[in-house]
Amino acid sequence: MRNIKVTCAYDGTSYHGFQEQRGTGLGTVQEEIEKALQGLSGSPIRVIGAGRTDAGVHARGQVVNFTTQSWNIPVDKIALALNGVLPRDIAVLEASQESAVFHARFSAKAKTYCYSIQNARLPDPFLRRYSYFVPRHLDTDAMAAAGEILVGSHDFASFKAEGTPVKSTERKIFSLGLVVTEELVKIYVRGNGFLYNMVRIIAGTLLEVGLKKYPPQHVEDILLGRNRVLAGPTVPPQGLCLMSVEY
Amino acid sequence: MRNIKVTCAYDGTSYHGFQEQRGTGLGTVQEEIEKALQGLSGSPIRVIGAGRTDAGVHARGQVVNFTTQSWNIPVDKIALALNGVLPRDIAVLEASQESAVFHARFSAKAKTYCYSIQNARLPDPFLRRYSYFVPRHLDTDAMAAAGEILVGSHDFASFKAEGTPVKSTERKIFSLGLVVTEELVKIYVRGNGFLYNMVRIIAGTLLEVGLKKYPPQHVEDILLGRNRVLAGPTVPPQGLCLMSVEY
Repeated sequence: MRNIKVTCAYDGTSYHGFQEQRGTGLGTVQEEIEKALQGLSGSPIRVIGAGRTDAGVHARGQVVNFTTQSWNIPVDKIALALNGVLPRDIAVLEASQESAVFHARFSAKAKTYCYSIQNARLPDPFLRRYSYFVPRHLDTDAMAAAGEILVGSHDFASFKAEGTPVKSTERKIFSLGLVVTEELVKIYVRGNGFLYNMVRIIAGTLLEVGLKKYPPQHVEDILLGRNRVLAGPTVPPQGLCLMSVEY
Repeated sequence: MRNIKVTCAYDGTSYHGFQEQRGTGLGTVQEEIEKALQGLSGSPIRVIGAGRTDAGVHARGQVVNFTTQSWNIPVDKIALALNGVLPRDIAVLEASQESAVFHARFSAKAKTYCYSIQNARLPDPFLRRYSYFVPRHLDTDAMAAAGEILVGSHDFASFKAEGTPVKSTERKIFSLGLVVTEELVKIYVRGNGFLYNMVRIIAGTLLEVGLKKYPPQHVEDILLGRNRVLAGPTVPPQGLCLMSVEY
Protein backbone atom coordinates (compact mmCIF):
# COMPACT_ATOMS: atom_id res chain seq x y z
CA MET A 1 0.00 0.00 0.00
CA ARG A 2 1.55 3.29 -1.08
CA ASN A 3 0.58 6.59 0.56
CA ILE A 4 1.04 9.42 -1.96
CA LYS A 5 1.21 13.13 -1.14
CA VAL A 6 0.35 15.52 -3.96
CA THR A 7 0.73 19.32 -3.93
CA CYS A 8 -1.56 21.17 -6.31
CA ALA A 9 -2.65 24.63 -7.44
CA TYR A 10 -6.04 25.66 -8.73
CA ASP A 11 -8.05 28.61 -9.90
CA GLY A 12 -11.15 28.06 -7.78
CA THR A 13 -13.45 30.37 -9.76
CA SER A 14 -15.37 27.56 -11.45
CA TYR A 15 -15.63 25.15 -8.51
CA HIS A 16 -17.94 24.68 -5.54
CA GLY A 17 -14.90 24.54 -3.31
CA PHE A 18 -12.34 21.82 -2.75
CA GLN A 19 -14.88 19.54 -1.16
CA GLU A 20 -18.64 19.80 -1.46
CA GLN A 21 -20.04 20.53 2.00
CA ARG A 22 -23.72 20.18 1.17
CA GLY A 23 -23.56 16.77 -0.35
CA THR A 24 -24.52 17.64 -3.93
CA GLY A 25 -21.12 16.38 -5.05
CA LEU A 26 -21.09 18.71 -8.05
CA GLY A 27 -18.06 20.48 -9.48
CA THR A 28 -15.51 20.28 -6.72
CA VAL A 29 -11.73 20.21 -7.05
CA GLN A 30 -11.62 16.96 -5.07
CA GLU A 31 -13.99 15.35 -7.54
CA GLU A 32 -11.85 16.39 -10.51
CA ILE A 33 -8.71 14.96 -8.89
CA GLU A 34 -10.48 11.71 -7.98
CA LYS A 35 -11.86 11.40 -11.52
CA ALA A 36 -8.36 11.91 -12.95
CA LEU A 37 -6.87 9.34 -10.57
CA GLN A 38 -9.53 6.79 -11.40
CA GLY A 39 -8.99 7.32 -15.12
CA LEU A 40 -5.25 6.79 -14.79
CA SER A 41 -5.22 3.97 -12.23
CA GLY A 42 -8.33 2.10 -13.32
CA SER A 43 -9.81 1.95 -9.82
CA PRO A 44 -11.60 4.43 -7.56
CA ILE A 45 -9.25 6.49 -5.37
CA ARG A 46 -10.41 8.74 -2.55
CA VAL A 47 -8.27 11.77 -1.73
CA ILE A 48 -7.96 13.70 1.53
CA GLY A 49 -7.32 17.44 1.28
CA ALA A 50 -5.41 19.54 3.81
CA GLY A 51 -7.79 22.49 3.58
CA ARG A 52 -11.46 22.56 2.59
CA THR A 53 -11.26 25.75 0.56
CA ASP A 54 -14.67 27.32 -0.15
CA ALA A 55 -16.34 27.98 -3.49
CA GLY A 56 -14.29 30.52 -5.46
CA VAL A 57 -11.22 30.26 -3.21
CA HIS A 58 -7.89 29.48 -4.90
CA ALA A 59 -4.83 27.43 -3.99
CA ARG A 60 -1.18 27.60 -4.88
CA GLY A 61 -0.12 24.91 -2.43
CA GLN A 62 -3.05 22.69 -1.48
CA VAL A 63 -1.92 19.24 -0.34
CA VAL A 64 -3.85 16.01 -0.77
CA ASN A 65 -2.98 12.41 -0.06
CA PHE A 66 -4.33 9.07 -1.18
CA THR A 67 -3.44 5.43 -0.77
CA THR A 68 -3.23 2.89 -3.55
CA GLN A 69 -2.33 -0.76 -3.73
CA SER A 70 -2.70 -1.52 -7.41
CA TRP A 71 -1.50 1.63 -9.18
CA ASN A 72 2.20 1.10 -9.96
CA ILE A 73 3.08 4.41 -11.60
CA PRO A 74 6.51 5.72 -10.50
CA VAL A 75 5.99 8.61 -8.10
CA ASP A 76 8.01 11.02 -10.25
CA LYS A 77 5.59 10.47 -13.17
CA ILE A 78 2.44 11.29 -11.20
CA ALA A 79 2.47 15.09 -11.70
CA LEU A 80 2.86 14.83 -15.47
CA ALA A 81 0.27 12.06 -15.76
CA LEU A 82 -2.33 13.96 -13.72
CA ASN A 83 -1.69 17.26 -15.53
CA GLY A 84 -2.35 15.47 -18.81
CA VAL A 85 -5.94 14.67 -17.77
CA LEU A 86 -6.92 17.35 -15.23
CA PRO A 87 -8.87 20.45 -16.33
CA ARG A 88 -6.54 23.35 -17.08
CA ASP A 89 -7.53 25.29 -13.96
CA ILE A 90 -6.08 22.56 -11.72
CA ALA A 91 -2.39 21.64 -11.82
CA VAL A 92 -0.31 19.17 -9.85
CA LEU A 93 3.02 20.66 -8.77
CA GLU A 94 4.65 17.79 -6.94
CA ALA A 95 4.12 14.22 -5.76
CA SER A 96 6.00 12.16 -3.19
CA GLN A 97 5.63 8.89 -1.34
CA GLU A 98 5.04 9.20 2.41
CA SER A 99 4.86 6.84 5.37
CA ALA A 100 1.57 5.10 6.14
CA VAL A 101 0.73 7.56 8.93
CA PHE A 102 0.84 10.69 6.75
CA HIS A 103 -2.57 12.40 6.56
CA ALA A 104 -2.95 15.61 4.53
CA ARG A 105 -5.25 17.23 7.10
CA PHE A 106 -4.32 15.78 10.48
CA SER A 107 -0.54 15.79 9.93
CA ALA A 108 -0.50 19.48 8.95
CA LYS A 109 1.54 21.67 11.34
CA ALA A 110 0.86 25.02 9.67
CA LYS A 111 -1.04 26.57 6.79
CA THR A 112 -0.48 29.89 5.08
CA TYR A 113 -3.28 31.81 3.41
CA CYS A 114 -3.10 35.05 1.46
CA TYR A 115 -5.98 37.49 1.04
CA SER A 116 -5.53 39.94 -1.87
CA ILE A 117 -7.23 43.33 -2.04
CA GLN A 118 -6.95 45.36 -5.23
CA ASN A 119 -6.68 48.84 -3.74
CA ALA A 120 -6.73 51.24 -6.67
CA ARG A 121 -8.93 53.92 -8.12
CA LEU A 122 -9.95 51.78 -11.09
CA PRO A 123 -10.69 48.04 -11.30
CA ASP A 124 -8.19 45.78 -13.09
CA PRO A 125 -9.97 43.16 -15.24
CA PHE A 126 -6.98 40.83 -14.89
CA LEU A 127 -7.13 40.83 -11.08
CA ARG A 128 -10.89 40.57 -10.63
CA ARG A 129 -10.88 36.76 -10.33
CA TYR A 130 -8.04 36.83 -7.81
CA SER A 131 -8.68 39.84 -5.58
CA TYR A 132 -11.33 41.98 -3.87
CA PHE A 133 -11.58 45.45 -5.39
CA VAL A 134 -11.59 48.26 -2.82
CA PRO A 135 -11.23 51.69 -4.46
CA ARG A 136 -11.13 53.69 -1.19
CA HIS A 137 -7.96 54.76 0.62
CA LEU A 138 -6.63 52.16 3.08
CA ASP A 139 -4.45 52.97 6.07
CA THR A 140 -2.18 49.95 5.71
CA ASP A 141 -0.07 50.87 8.76
CA ALA A 142 -3.20 50.68 10.91
CA MET A 143 -4.13 47.36 9.26
CA ALA A 144 -0.69 45.93 10.05
CA ALA A 145 -0.95 47.13 13.67
CA ALA A 146 -4.36 45.46 13.98
CA GLY A 147 -2.96 42.26 12.49
CA GLU A 148 -0.22 42.10 15.13
CA ILE A 149 -2.87 41.95 17.87
CA LEU A 150 -4.14 38.67 16.36
CA VAL A 151 -0.75 36.95 16.39
CA GLY A 152 -0.40 34.26 19.06
CA SER A 153 -2.77 31.78 20.69
CA HIS A 154 -6.27 33.18 21.08
CA ASP A 155 -9.91 32.18 21.21
CA PHE A 156 -10.99 33.21 17.71
CA ALA A 157 -14.75 32.74 18.32
CA SER A 158 -15.38 36.27 16.97
CA PHE A 159 -13.69 35.25 13.71
CA LYS A 160 -15.65 32.08 13.01
CA ALA A 161 -18.67 31.82 10.72
CA GLU A 162 -21.75 30.15 12.16
CA GLY A 163 -22.93 26.68 11.36
CA THR A 164 -19.84 24.54 11.89
CA PRO A 165 -19.55 23.00 15.36
CA VAL A 166 -15.95 22.61 16.55
CA LYS A 167 -14.55 21.37 19.86
CA SER A 168 -12.46 24.45 20.45
CA THR A 169 -12.26 27.90 18.88
CA GLU A 170 -8.71 28.41 20.09
CA ARG A 171 -6.11 28.65 17.33
CA LYS A 172 -2.55 29.90 17.06
CA ILE A 173 -1.51 32.47 14.46
CA PHE A 174 2.26 32.28 13.96
CA SER A 175 2.48 35.37 11.81
CA LEU A 176 0.29 37.94 10.06
CA GLY A 177 1.89 40.37 7.65
CA LEU A 178 0.92 42.80 4.90
CA VAL A 179 2.64 43.07 1.54
CA VAL A 180 1.69 46.35 -0.12
CA THR A 181 2.43 46.98 -3.79
CA GLU A 182 1.23 49.65 -6.19
CA GLU A 183 -2.23 48.22 -6.62
CA LEU A 184 -2.45 45.26 -4.23
CA VAL A 185 -2.64 44.88 -0.47
CA LYS A 186 -1.92 41.27 0.42
CA ILE A 187 -2.58 39.90 3.89
CA TYR A 188 -0.53 36.77 4.66
CA VAL A 189 -1.64 34.69 7.63
CA ARG A 190 0.24 31.62 8.86
CA GLY A 191 -1.32 29.56 11.61
CA ASN A 192 -1.70 26.07 13.07
CA GLY A 193 -5.30 25.87 11.87
CA PHE A 194 -8.21 28.06 10.88
CA LEU A 195 -11.90 28.15 11.80
CA TYR A 196 -14.57 28.33 9.12
CA ASN A 197 -14.19 31.62 7.19
CA MET A 198 -11.61 32.80 9.74
CA VAL A 199 -9.16 34.31 7.23
CA ARG A 200 -11.94 36.11 5.33
CA ILE A 201 -13.35 37.55 8.58
CA ILE A 202 -9.84 38.62 9.66
CA ALA A 203 -9.38 40.33 6.27
CA GLY A 204 -12.81 41.98 6.59
CA THR A 205 -11.89 43.25 10.06
CA LEU A 206 -8.50 44.59 8.95
CA LEU A 207 -10.30 46.29 6.07
CA GLU A 208 -12.59 48.13 8.51
CA VAL A 209 -9.47 49.26 10.38
CA GLY A 210 -7.92 50.35 7.07
CA LEU A 211 -11.07 52.33 6.26
CA LYS A 212 -10.85 53.99 9.72
CA LYS A 213 -14.12 52.54 11.02
CA TYR A 214 -12.28 51.84 14.28
CA PRO A 215 -8.67 52.04 15.50
CA PRO A 216 -6.34 49.01 15.47
CA GLN A 217 -6.64 48.64 19.27
CA HIS A 218 -10.33 47.84 18.90
CA VAL A 219 -9.38 44.45 17.47
CA GLU A 220 -8.36 43.48 21.01
CA ASP A 221 -11.98 44.08 22.13
CA ILE A 222 -13.33 42.09 19.18
CA LEU A 223 -11.07 39.17 20.15
CA LEU A 224 -12.04 39.32 23.84
CA GLY A 225 -15.77 39.66 23.05
CA ARG A 226 -15.86 36.14 21.52
CA ASN A 227 -18.85 37.06 19.37
CA ARG A 228 -19.03 36.95 15.57
CA VAL A 229 -21.12 40.13 15.34
CA LEU A 230 -18.24 42.20 16.73
CA ALA A 231 -15.83 41.46 13.88
CA GLY A 232 -15.88 42.80 10.31
CA PRO A 233 -17.66 41.22 7.34
CA THR A 234 -16.69 37.99 5.60
CA VAL A 235 -15.00 39.39 2.48
CA PRO A 236 -15.58 37.67 -0.90
CA PRO A 237 -13.92 34.33 -1.69
CA GLN A 238 -12.00 35.32 -4.83
CA GLY A 239 -9.38 37.24 -2.80
CA LEU A 240 -8.40 34.16 -0.82
CA CYS A 241 -5.68 31.68 -1.71
CA LEU A 242 -4.24 28.73 0.23
CA MET A 243 -0.53 29.30 -0.30
CA SER A 244 1.11 26.35 1.48
CA VAL A 245 0.72 23.60 4.01
CA GLU A 246 3.60 22.58 6.26
CA TYR A 247 4.14 19.17 7.88
CA MET B 1 -20.37 67.73 -30.79
CA ARG B 2 -17.79 66.27 -28.41
CA ASN B 3 -15.27 63.65 -29.55
CA ILE B 4 -14.32 61.46 -26.59
CA LYS B 5 -11.29 59.17 -26.41
CA VAL B 6 -11.49 56.30 -23.93
CA THR B 7 -8.65 53.95 -22.94
CA CYS B 8 -9.79 50.58 -21.66
CA ALA B 9 -8.55 47.19 -20.49
CA TYR B 10 -10.30 43.86 -20.83
CA ASP B 11 -9.94 40.18 -20.17
CA GLY B 12 -10.96 38.90 -23.60
CA THR B 13 -11.58 35.29 -22.55
CA SER B 14 -15.37 35.55 -22.66
CA TYR B 15 -15.72 37.69 -25.80
CA HIS B 16 -15.87 37.08 -29.53
CA GLY B 17 -13.23 39.74 -29.98
CA PHE B 18 -13.44 43.51 -29.78
CA GLN B 19 -15.61 43.70 -32.86
CA GLU B 20 -17.61 40.86 -34.39
CA GLN B 21 -16.19 40.13 -37.82
CA ARG B 22 -18.80 37.67 -39.02
CA GLY B 23 -21.82 39.83 -38.40
CA THR B 24 -23.47 37.78 -35.65
CA GLY B 25 -23.03 40.74 -33.31
CA LEU B 26 -22.88 38.49 -30.26
CA GLY B 27 -20.76 39.04 -27.16
CA THR B 28 -18.15 41.53 -28.31
CA VAL B 29 -16.31 44.10 -26.21
CA GLN B 30 -17.51 46.86 -28.52
CA GLU B 31 -21.11 45.83 -27.94
CA GLU B 32 -20.69 45.93 -24.16
CA ILE B 33 -19.18 49.42 -24.29
CA GLU B 34 -21.92 50.66 -26.63
CA LYS B 35 -24.59 49.16 -24.37
CA ALA B 36 -23.05 50.89 -21.36
CA LEU B 37 -22.85 54.22 -23.20
CA GLN B 38 -26.44 53.98 -24.35
CA GLY B 39 -27.60 53.15 -20.81
CA LEU B 40 -25.78 56.18 -19.39
CA SER B 41 -26.45 58.70 -22.14
CA GLY B 42 -29.92 57.62 -23.14
CA SER B 43 -29.13 57.49 -26.84
CA PRO B 44 -27.31 55.03 -29.11
CA ILE B 45 -23.56 55.71 -29.37
CA ARG B 46 -21.27 53.96 -31.83
CA VAL B 47 -17.63 53.48 -30.81
CA ILE B 48 -14.56 53.07 -33.01
CA GLY B 49 -11.77 50.85 -31.68
CA ALA B 50 -8.06 51.26 -32.44
CA GLY B 51 -7.44 47.54 -32.78
CA ARG B 52 -9.86 44.76 -33.70
CA THR B 53 -8.56 42.23 -31.21
CA ASP B 54 -9.67 38.65 -31.94
CA ALA B 55 -11.76 36.33 -29.78
CA GLY B 56 -9.85 35.54 -26.57
CA VAL B 57 -7.26 38.32 -27.04
CA HIS B 58 -6.83 40.78 -24.14
CA ALA B 59 -6.13 44.48 -23.87
CA ARG B 60 -4.47 46.69 -21.29
CA GLY B 61 -4.55 49.81 -23.45
CA GLN B 62 -7.20 49.55 -26.15
CA VAL B 63 -8.39 52.97 -27.32
CA VAL B 64 -11.87 53.79 -28.58
CA ASN B 65 -13.53 57.05 -29.53
CA PHE B 66 -17.10 58.20 -29.96
CA THR B 67 -18.90 61.42 -30.65
CA THR B 68 -21.89 62.72 -28.74
CA GLN B 69 -23.99 65.83 -28.93
CA SER B 70 -26.53 65.29 -26.19
CA TRP B 71 -24.55 63.56 -23.40
CA ASN B 72 -23.29 66.29 -21.07
CA ILE B 73 -21.35 64.22 -18.54
CA PRO B 74 -18.06 65.93 -17.51
CA VAL B 75 -15.18 64.08 -19.16
CA ASP B 76 -13.48 63.35 -15.82
CA LYS B 77 -16.56 61.41 -14.66
CA ILE B 78 -16.77 59.12 -17.70
CA ALA B 79 -14.40 56.39 -16.44
CA LEU B 80 -16.19 56.02 -13.11
CA ALA B 81 -19.64 56.09 -14.73
CA LEU B 82 -18.75 53.44 -17.31
CA ASN B 83 -17.02 51.20 -14.76
CA GLY B 84 -20.19 51.27 -12.71
CA VAL B 85 -22.18 49.60 -15.49
CA LEU B 86 -19.65 47.61 -17.55
CA PRO B 87 -19.12 43.88 -16.89
CA ARG B 88 -16.24 43.31 -14.50
CA ASP B 89 -13.92 41.95 -17.21
CA ILE B 90 -13.91 45.34 -18.99
CA ALA B 91 -12.60 48.49 -17.30
CA VAL B 92 -12.20 52.05 -18.50
CA LEU B 93 -8.86 53.53 -17.44
CA GLU B 94 -9.05 57.02 -18.83
CA ALA B 95 -11.21 59.41 -20.85
CA SER B 96 -10.35 62.68 -22.55
CA GLN B 97 -11.91 65.10 -25.00
CA GLU B 98 -10.19 65.28 -28.39
CA SER B 99 -10.45 67.45 -31.48
CA ALA B 100 -13.05 66.56 -34.11
CA VAL B 101 -10.46 64.90 -36.37
CA PHE B 102 -9.32 62.33 -33.79
CA HIS B 103 -10.09 58.76 -34.92
CA ALA B 104 -9.08 55.84 -32.68
CA ARG B 105 -7.97 53.70 -35.64
CA PHE B 106 -6.83 56.08 -38.37
CA SER B 107 -5.03 58.54 -36.04
CA ALA B 108 -2.95 55.78 -34.40
CA LYS B 109 0.80 56.18 -34.97
CA ALA B 110 1.93 53.03 -33.17
CA LYS B 111 0.59 50.03 -31.33
CA THR B 112 2.33 47.74 -28.89
CA TYR B 113 1.32 44.13 -28.42
CA CYS B 114 2.68 41.58 -25.99
CA TYR B 115 2.59 37.82 -26.51
CA SER B 116 3.11 35.79 -23.31
CA ILE B 117 4.43 32.23 -23.25
CA GLN B 118 4.42 30.33 -19.98
CA ASN B 119 7.66 28.41 -20.33
CA ALA B 120 7.85 26.06 -17.37
CA ARG B 121 7.80 22.38 -16.64
CA LEU B 122 4.34 22.52 -15.08
CA PRO B 123 1.25 24.55 -16.08
CA ASP B 124 0.19 27.46 -13.84
CA PRO B 125 -3.63 27.59 -13.45
CA PHE B 126 -3.44 31.34 -12.79
CA LEU B 127 -1.66 32.05 -16.09
CA ARG B 128 -3.65 29.76 -18.37
CA ARG B 129 -6.09 32.49 -19.43
CA TYR B 130 -3.28 34.95 -20.17
CA SER B 131 -0.49 32.89 -21.72
CA TYR B 132 0.39 29.98 -23.98
CA PHE B 133 1.88 27.05 -22.07
CA VAL B 134 5.05 25.65 -23.65
CA PRO B 135 6.80 23.14 -21.35
CA ARG B 136 9.82 22.52 -23.64
CA HIS B 137 13.13 24.36 -23.39
CA LEU B 138 13.28 27.60 -25.38
CA ASP B 139 16.48 29.20 -26.67
CA THR B 140 15.45 32.78 -25.90
CA ASP B 141 18.70 34.24 -27.26
CA ALA B 142 17.93 32.69 -30.64
CA MET B 143 14.36 34.01 -30.42
CA ALA B 144 15.61 37.54 -29.71
CA ALA B 145 18.05 37.30 -32.64
CA ALA B 146 15.22 36.18 -34.93
CA GLY B 147 13.07 39.05 -33.68
CA GLU B 148 15.70 41.61 -34.61
CA ILE B 149 15.52 40.50 -38.25
CA LEU B 150 11.85 41.57 -38.32
CA VAL B 151 12.53 45.12 -37.06
CA GLY B 152 12.17 47.79 -39.73
CA SER B 153 9.97 48.25 -42.82
CA HIS B 154 9.24 44.95 -44.55
CA ASP B 155 6.65 43.19 -46.63
CA PHE B 156 5.07 40.96 -43.97
CA ALA B 157 2.99 38.84 -46.41
CA SER B 158 4.43 35.67 -44.83
CA PHE B 159 3.05 36.82 -41.47
CA LYS B 160 -0.52 37.51 -42.54
CA ALA B 161 -3.46 35.14 -42.13
CA GLU B 162 -5.58 34.49 -45.20
CA GLY B 163 -8.98 35.97 -45.84
CA THR B 164 -8.48 39.66 -45.25
CA PRO B 165 -7.70 41.68 -48.37
CA VAL B 166 -5.43 44.66 -47.70
CA LYS B 167 -3.92 47.19 -50.09
CA SER B 168 -0.39 46.62 -48.91
CA THR B 169 1.31 44.04 -46.73
CA GLU B 170 4.15 46.39 -45.89
CA ARG B 171 4.38 47.39 -42.26
CA LYS B 172 7.06 48.90 -40.03
CA ILE B 173 8.10 47.27 -36.76
CA PHE B 174 9.77 49.89 -34.55
CA SER B 175 10.96 47.42 -31.94
CA LEU B 176 10.68 43.77 -30.99
CA GLY B 177 12.04 42.64 -27.64
CA LEU B 178 11.85 39.70 -25.26
CA VAL B 179 11.35 39.96 -21.52
CA VAL B 180 12.27 36.66 -19.87
CA THR B 181 11.30 35.94 -16.26
CA GLU B 182 11.32 32.74 -14.24
CA GLU B 183 8.24 31.26 -15.89
CA LEU B 184 7.27 33.70 -18.64
CA VAL B 185 8.73 34.64 -22.01
CA LYS B 186 7.08 37.85 -23.19
CA ILE B 187 7.47 39.10 -26.75
CA TYR B 188 6.81 42.84 -27.07
CA VAL B 189 6.22 44.16 -30.58
CA ARG B 190 5.74 47.86 -31.35
CA GLY B 191 4.82 48.81 -34.91
CA ASN B 192 2.93 51.29 -37.05
CA GLY B 193 0.27 48.70 -37.85
CA PHE B 194 -0.28 44.96 -37.96
CA LEU B 195 -1.77 42.58 -40.51
CA TYR B 196 -4.40 40.03 -39.51
CA ASN B 197 -2.87 37.59 -36.97
CA MET B 198 0.57 39.09 -37.61
CA VAL B 199 1.71 39.17 -33.97
CA ARG B 200 0.53 35.63 -33.32
CA ILE B 201 2.32 34.36 -36.44
CA ILE B 202 5.48 36.25 -35.43
CA ALA B 203 5.25 34.65 -31.96
CA GLY B 204 4.69 31.22 -33.55
CA THR B 205 7.74 31.72 -35.77
CA LEU B 206 9.96 32.87 -32.90
CA LEU B 207 8.72 29.86 -30.97
CA GLU B 208 9.93 27.52 -33.73
CA VAL B 209 13.32 29.27 -33.56
CA GLY B 210 13.30 28.84 -29.77
CA LEU B 211 12.54 25.14 -30.20
CA LYS B 212 15.49 24.88 -32.65
CA LYS B 213 13.35 23.92 -35.64
CA TYR B 214 15.45 26.38 -37.67
CA PRO B 215 18.14 28.98 -36.90
CA PRO B 216 17.31 32.70 -36.39
CA GLN B 217 18.74 33.57 -39.82
CA HIS B 218 16.02 31.49 -41.49
CA VAL B 219 13.52 34.22 -40.55
CA GLU B 220 15.13 36.35 -43.27
CA ASP B 221 14.14 33.68 -45.86
CA ILE B 222 10.60 33.52 -44.44
CA LEU B 223 10.29 37.28 -44.79
CA LEU B 224 11.67 37.32 -48.35
CA GLY B 225 9.50 34.36 -49.43
CA ARG B 226 6.29 36.41 -48.94
CA ASN B 227 4.25 33.25 -48.38
CA ARG B 228 2.24 32.39 -45.28
CA VAL B 229 3.18 28.68 -45.43
CA LEU B 230 6.83 29.53 -44.73
CA ALA B 231 6.24 31.08 -41.31
CA GLY B 232 5.40 29.34 -38.05
CA PRO B 233 1.91 28.55 -36.71
CA THR B 234 -0.63 31.11 -35.47
CA VAL B 235 -0.26 30.62 -31.72
CA PRO B 236 -3.41 30.68 -29.50
CA PRO B 237 -5.19 33.98 -28.75
CA GLN B 238 -5.01 33.91 -24.93
CA GLY B 239 -1.29 34.81 -24.97
CA LEU B 240 -1.90 38.06 -26.84
CA CYS B 241 -2.56 41.46 -25.28
CA LEU B 242 -2.87 44.91 -26.88
CA MET B 243 -0.72 46.95 -24.49
CA SER B 244 -1.01 50.50 -25.82
CA VAL B 245 -1.86 52.70 -28.77
CA GLU B 246 0.10 55.87 -29.48
CA TYR B 247 -1.15 58.98 -31.29
